[in-house]
Amino acid sequence: MARVIVDVMLKPEILDPQGQAIARALPRLGFTTITDVRQGKRFELELPGPATEATLTEARKIAETLLANTVIEDFHVHVEEDA
Amino acid sequence: MARVIVDVMLKPEILDPQGQAIARALPRLGFTTITDVRQGKRFELELPGPATEATLTEARKIAETLLANTVIEDFHVHVEEDA
Repeated sequence: MARVIVDVMLKPEILDPQGQAIARALPRLGFTTITDVRQGKRFELELPGPATEATLTEARKIAETLLANTVIEDFHVHVEEDA
Repeated sequence: MARVIVDVMLKPEILDPQGQAIARALPRLGFTTITDVRQGKRFELELPGPATEATLTEARKIAETLLANTVIEDFHVHVEEDA
């Protein structure tokens, strides 16, 4: 059984108010190392069998049509092998 | 410059209605390979310098106190080296 991960993040040129809110909260909580935060989404897609080139292509199509808004978001598809 | 990634996912025993809605939409759209979907969050924390054990510890504390609700969510912290 394999798991395909789709990471969806706002494009770098798109303002991310959620990430900014977190970044501004950090110094108040005593965390001073982090300079910037971006928040995005992570989807775990479960496959019954192993991940093949065909299933990766399907996952990419799913990401494009359903999971990401490609006008404002970038997505990245990768495989996480699992027990 | 390094980037620390915090992945936050609902614990496996917690119901994920967002993921279920996506999983149920897939066959209607013609995607039949995926058996289950879980939706979570991905945070990208920017560091001015390289990631050290100390910054990873700080990232873990940030995840615990601010990014994840550890009652219902699991988080995973890892480093993504960047230009």
